[in-house]
Amino acid sequence: MVKDCNEISNQALYIGIDGGGTKCRAILANAAGMLLGEGIGGPANPFYGVECACNSIEEASIKAVADAGLPSSKLKDIVAGVGLAGVNLPNLHRELCDWKNPFLEMYLTTDMDIANIGAHDNMYGAVIIIGTGSVGYVNTPSNKFMLGGYGFPISDKASGAWLGLKAIEHTLLVLDKFKGSSLLAEKICEFYQINTGIELSEKLVGYASSQYAKIASLVFNCALKGDEYALEIIEEGVEYISALANRLVEGESLRLCMIGGLAKYWRSRLNSKTAAYFSDVKQQPEFGALKLAIRNWAKEDRKIA
Amino acid sequence: MVKDCNEISNQALYIGIDGGGTKCRAILANAAGMLLGEGIGGPANPFYGVECACNSIEEASIKAVADAGLPSSKLKDIVAGVGLAGVNLPNLHRELCDWKNPFLEMYLTTDMDIANIGAHDNMYGAVIIIGTGSVGYVNTPSNKFMLGGYGFPISDKASGAWLGLKAIEHTLLVLDKFKGSSLLAEKICEFYQINTGIELSEKLVGYASSQYAKIASLVFNCALKGDEYALEIIEEGVEYISALANRLVEGESLRLCMIGGLAKYWRSRLNSKTAAYFSDVKQQPEFGALKLAIRNWAKEDRKIA
Repeated sequence: MVKDCNEISNQALYIGIDGGGTKCRAILANAAGMLLGEGIGGPANPFYGVECACNSIEEASIKAVADAGLPSSKLKDIVAGVGLAGVNLPNLHRELCDWKNPFLEMYLTTDMDIANIGAHDNMYGAVIIIGTGSVGYVNTPSNKFMLGGYGFPISDKASGAWLGLKAIEHTLLVLDKFKGSSLLAEKICEFYQINTGIELSEKLVGYASSQYAKIASLVFNCALKGDEYALEIIEEGVEYISALANRLVEGESLRLCMIGGLAKYWRSRLNSKTAAYFSDVKQQPEFGALKLAIRNWAKEDRKIA
Repeated sequence: MVKDCNEISNQALYIGIDGGGTKCRAILANAAGMLLGEGIGGPANPFYGVECACNSIEEASIKAVADAGLPSSKLKDIVAGVGLAGVNLPNLHRELCDWKNPFLEMYLTTDMDIANIGAHDNMYGAVIIIGTGSVGYVNTPSNKFMLGGYGFPISDKASGAWLGLKAIEHTLLVLDKFKGSSLLAEKICEFYQINTGIELSEKLVGYASSQYAKIASLVFNCALKGDEYALEIIEEGVEYISALANRLVEGESLRLCMIGGLAKYWRSRLNSKTAAYFSDVKQQPEFGALKLAIRNWAKEDRKIA
């Protein structure tokens, strides 16, 4: 995406960054939101290393700038909006703020916040993000809070990791003959190519939440085929999502979106009352991050030199 | 415990070792089972490092030998019985067997096996071990199997880590107002000195199962005071232990013991039918390990030089 460099280099430029657990997306745009370049970097979940996250942010940003035909030295003139998991934790927030970042200015917020801004395209609203983890988030002039999202294994009901854990727990009880056999247990054994509880536990030693999440779709598939235990797990997830949606909207006519890798699975399982809460996502999180950068920089009433 | 060295040094000597997650116990005895020395070493759960476990076994053994007034070089004439968690997993078993151990001979088995031998003093029987983890184990001429014990967070219902996790899950739902307040949630917040879900999750980042287990007794205390949620958790644990006891004994009049840090709590909560299954423990696991060493060495019909 190479533009005329002279034309671009005199504009006020902004980068929007969505740092995820597997990759980091960066988009470069001007103040009008016109997309000029894109870049992908490595993992940027600061839970698994602040330095790695910072490197990935810089990597993705340099690629976005290069994509627009600009040198990496240009970053020092660019205002960045960055959304990262975990920066609502004071310690991680502090560490990220201490980073000598390459930008003119960096506005740091949570992955939830940029997803919310993107989903509603700058309008106020709430989001339920369901991928490896799950969280509910609302941000309006009168209300700003999160529900769930405290991580694996203590929280994040209905998330991919939660589904995976429930399926594994069930499979071990079947293998120990505390429960009768089930399609779900069969599919899990097939997936891991194991026959005993010991073999299964050996496969899972040191497993991170993202690895449990890999089997989440098996639970939905078995539920579709009528497996009783898969249906029980899905029902518990649906109940939680319904309660979460209720709590986020609390009677207000607030815009609510569900996003993340499992959103499409869950939306198809909701009852019509809960399903009616949800609107479609307007833009992806990296666009939310971009909007945050443009908006906050304008508020500060400054001009890029 | 210093004896006459000359007298001891001509006897056939045996060491029994119980390697646990926080420490490793070693006892030294002669073929008649007369206790000659004791020693404690560091953590010896091979899950958290095979080298560390081996070092702790050697450390505890050297101390036991020194306690009997013998030099550490004596280990090469001693037959050891060693019980360790996780050595039912083929990979860990192999690694431990590859260890150039300091003994004349080393018989390696699981922590469950030595607990079982000790609990029934060489008779056949079954055990339910409930501490940080939980497992059921039976070993008779016709039956040898384990139930549960696959580790945290996928298994080990009724264990300390399971109780802790359940209590934390409950507390986060209370803090998010998905559930009404409870004594249990209050006590957990007090224990961790926190007021919000974020603060609680921050305390738990990177928590190992043993750290969840630290709050297990809070659940029992709150149940004693009638807290509804604590009682729910305890009830689920009791159901599991009852099913486990049934499965281990399966109609046979097999001796069954419950051991581990939480045994006394659980035994007091069982209904009279399940409680009637249980006998008292005869000896501690390290004595089981010692018996294993003496028995296996005798079977091989060899003599210590």
